[in-house]
Amino acid sequence: MSFDSDVAVIVGVGLIGGSLARAMKDRRLANHIIGCGRNQARLAAAQQSGLIDDWSTDMVQAGAVADLIVVCTPVDLIPRNVDSCASHARPGTLITDAGSIKRAICESVDPQLATFIGSHPIAGSHRHGHEFANGELFEDRVCIVTPDTDVPVPQIDRLKALWESVGSRVIEMTPREHDDVLAQTSHLPHVVAAALALSIDATNADFVGTGLRDATRIAGGDPSIWLPILQMNQDEILRNLERFRQQIDAFADALAQSDAEKLVELLGEARDRRRGLVRP
Amino acid sequence: MSFDSDVAVIVGVGLIGGSLARAMKDRRLANHIIGCGRNQARLAAAQQSGLIDDWSTDMVQAGAVADLIVVCTPVDLIPRNVDSCASHARPGTLITDAGSIKRAICESVDPQLATFIGSHPIAGSHRHGHEFANGELFEDRVCIVTPDTDVPVPQIDRLKALWESVGSRVIEMTPREHDDVLAQTSHLPHVVAAALALSIDATNADFVGTGLRDATRIAGGDPSIWLPILQMNQDEILRNLERFRQQIDAFADALAQSDAEKLVELLGEARDRRRGLVRP
Repeated sequence: MSFDSDVAVIVGVGLIGGSLARAMKDRRLANHIIGCGRNQARLAAAQQSGLIDDWSTDMVQAGAVADLIVVCTPVDLIPRNVDSCASHARPGTLITDAGSIKRAICESVDPQLATFIGSHPIAGSHRHGHEFANGELFEDRVCIVTPDTDVPVPQIDRLKALWESVGSRVIEMTPREHDDVLAQTSHLPHVVAAALALSIDATNADFVGTGLRDATRIAGGDPSIWLPILQMNQDEILRNLERFRQQIDAFADALAQSDAEKLVELLGEARDRRRGLVRP
Repeated sequence: MSFDSDVAVIVGVGLIGGSLARAMKDRRLANHIIGCGRNQARLAAAQQSGLIDDWSTDMVQAGAVADLIVVCTPVDLIPRNVDSCASHARPGTLITDAGSIKRAICESVDPQLATFIGSHPIAGSHRHGHEFANGELFEDRVCIVTPDTDVPVPQIDRLKALWESVGSRVIEMTPREHDDVLAQTSHLPHVVAAALALSIDATNADFVGTGLRDATRIAGGDPSIWLPILQMNQDEILRNLERFRQQIDAFADALAQSDAEKLVELLGEARDRRRGLVRP
């Protein structure tokens, strides 16, 4: 199914919002793209670089003229941004987001307002800002969509068509399933990388190789972005931290007992698990 | 101080040994380089690709004609390889290694045999084999050398000149200091990456992004290489696992108590620590 939009509003023209705007422009998926946000200078710069056709700091007004609204702000701002955009939206306007948390967002959006379906394109970078926008960011990536049971199927299909049109493979699941998966594949790794960085003495900088550099890369993320993510998926992250601790204990026990067989087994299983998880 | 060698023997012509051979050839640091190992076909291939001038499976014989011997085999093989090479070496032949463990190696080499000084060039890759040899591998990297107190200063200077000649910055420390540092910057990260990989369900492969991919990259390493490294630095790795566990607990406690202030503090400190550790 092909996708098209007359007026698309993208709220939050950062790396994700800017890349989506670029991808939609490159593929002529919208006649007119309006960027929304709070910082006029940043929005004007995004327009200058051709990502958006127009910009506004008034989400209510922008939402009223759109047939597609994509909210790409930090997760803690998404519910209120969706509410603002939706408050005067026309019936049938498709509203989605790009947040990496789904349950808390989908539960807090007022189902009376308009058609909201959560999205999470699993794409990104440690870089921030529309300066790094990349129209190919969503190519060959997975996008999870989390429709409520009462959302009309044509709206779900239209949302899937949007993400497929920018190159993604769409997988549908419930908001809770999404958060369970992401706790493992994204939120746990973030906490582990941060804890690892904090375990290294600052005086050892001369001896840091590429292994530690890569292992801690995600710990370089912005705390203000990550705090709400961790908060909004607290229980599932805690469960996964407990699982992870058991794996650390397995290594520590095998080391303390000089159990070579067990160590080789753990190292081999870890290598094989990673091979299965990370496609070349 | 410039470095030169008439006959250099490199034992173990894999990524590190092959890269050192390539670097020495590129910079004309040796008249003749002999590669030593067990696999004749691999050694012949390394000669074919111009990394070494000649090869031998007889370390004793090769060691007897060398003025420089660099043992680049897995850490558990280094002591006996050094002993073989040194058994008929001429007085004054400089013998070193490239192992990522120093205390157990330096303690097990017979001090009567010849001049042995431990080295650890902090350079490498998750790739294995001389096919990936790269003459620039040691450029702008740190090489730790761990001379015993009774090694003559001119030999230490000659070893430093070797590593400086291939582009490295040389730092001198004791074998124990080396193992303490590397437990933090290399061995702990390896165990953490492996434990993280084991914490992710195989069924979640569709949802693995670049963050988890990078955070677990080192877990893809060969268990047969890593087992002896972990075994030979067991106590120091266990101490660092305990420190790491405390950082994980700090995150878990802050999450469980919904302590936003503490979470932001931990995330911010982790980001700052990493910035200090990883030079751009």
